[in-house]
Amino acid sequence: MRLGGKATRKGGPVSTQPQPLGRRERGKLERAARIADAAATLFDEAPFADVTTEAIARAADVAEGTLFRYACSKTELLVLALNTRFEAALDRGLSTAAALDPLDTVGRVDALAGALLAIGDERPDNAALYQRELLFPTIGGDYLSEGERIARRWELAIAEPFEELAASLASASGAAATEVDPTQPPAPAGEAPAAPAAVGHLATEARLAGSAAWDAIQLSVARRARAGFPLLSRADLRGQFELLVRALNRTEVVNNTPTTQQESR
Amino acid sequence: MRLGGKATRKGGPVSTQPQPLGRRERGKLERAARIADAAATLFDEAPFADVTTEAIARAADVAEGTLFRYACSKTELLVLALNTRFEAALDRGLSTAAALDPLDTVGRVDALAGALLAIGDERPDNAALYQRELLFPTIGGDYLSEGERIARRWELAIAEPFEELAASLASASGAAATEVDPTQPPAPAGEAPAAPAAVGHLATEARLAGSAAWDAIQLSVARRARAGFPLLSRADLRGQFELLVRALNRTEVVNNTPTTQQESR
Repeated sequence: MRLGGKATRKGGPVSTQPQPLGRRERGKLERAARIADAAATLFDEAPFADVTTEAIARAADVAEGTLFRYACSKTELLVLALNTRFEAALDRGLSTAAALDPLDTVGRVDALAGALLAIGDERPDNAALYQRELLFPTIGGDYLSEGERIARRWELAIAEPFEELAASLASASGAAATEVDPTQPPAPAGEAPAAPAAVGHLATEARLAGSAAWDAIQLSVARRARAGFPLLSRADLRGQFELLVRALNRTEVVNNTPTTQQESR
Repeated sequence: MRLGGKATRKGGPVSTQPQPLGRRERGKLERAARIADAAATLFDEAPFADVTTEAIARAADVAEGTLFRYACSKTELLVLALNTRFEAALDRGLSTAAALDPLDTVGRVDALAGALLAIGDERPDNAALYQRELLFPTIGGDYLSEGERIARRWELAIAEPFEELAASLASASGAAATEVDPTQPPAPAGEAPAAPAAVGHLATEARLAGSAAWDAIQLSVARRARAGFPLLSRADLRGQFELLVRALNRTEVVNNTPTTQQESR
């Protein structure tokens, strides 16, 4: 098994977990890490079009032919590079959010949004290209899968504060498991009126709120790269999180109307 | 001025306004319309990769060289084709929405979303490519500008029901012009706290709600083209509109707490 043979795994996402590895496998991972670092540094410094694979190979101290065994295209290299940046931003955002009151839902979501948009602010063009690949991929492969895993982590992280708010509201009302759901519509317009669904609607709404917040954040990244595109300010984005939080708070008020009002236990 | 000369306007969006035109100019518009029709028909029937510019030229009854005077690439032809579809869908959605109670905000927004997603349902792959160009353009030119105009129309149409709800809430409370805004956050972390905004916050929130709804709709189109991507159902999307409407309704409740409660007038 020569290193230069047709690699089916193409280096893959760089593992940080210590495992007993052969020397060749270790060498491969080290090269993959050098390439990821070099690509990240160069894409931090210049727009996509101005970064050459040749320059990345040089900075990673590998031959250009070797580089292409780790990534088939410059787009793959961008995804590889920004995966690192976007995961680091998520961890930073989670740290910032963890310092806040767990029920400061808006603050926590906004801390995460801020961490993501800070990456985009450095090079909005490259961040938008990265996001374009995640939303509308033109490539496949391990680096894109890795990017999708990170995007999924982001999505879950954004949803979590909403879900914890919902859990807290449900536990405060003491009625979460038996509530009737006046808000789940039966289906799109023109069909029969809603039969009340029985459980879990606060959790469902938290999920929907998280998804709406994540969509707004993602398209903020896209908008930042476009001159003349209607841009929401950071305060506007935070205003959207507040709307969603207010809606969740309102769920409790509506749902408890016919049952016991347990004001503040 | 030969027709075959380097056209600066490349046919442009097809005007439907009757104007006195020269014979050549008329011929040009007719050809542009034939090309748009042919492209729309062919992109309805097959995925982007399977539609050739040669087939579009044949269906439009023009030479392939002529075709490229009207659109520089197959991507431009897709944008030209789907512009027509997306504007027609908007007009259909507006008709459906117009038949509803003006204050059925959720129903109106959902009618528009349904009209947009119906187009996407026919060929999710091509709809996603079209949307990718609008969000992250790789082309420029008149057809993209026309697409941006249509997207802007969509955005305004989605925002309108929220804005009308806000206007109605403001007028019902009779306090719109003097309210203090408890919901506008001080601003992103680290900046000076906001002086309470006096007017227009309901309108601002309506705008933010409209934008959040539009983002969710746009990314629904994107998600539909991706196998294995977390997909929100139509009911989920409607659930998001309901959250936003509930948040706007809640604005009034919060603001009127110290003043008269006009329960249901």
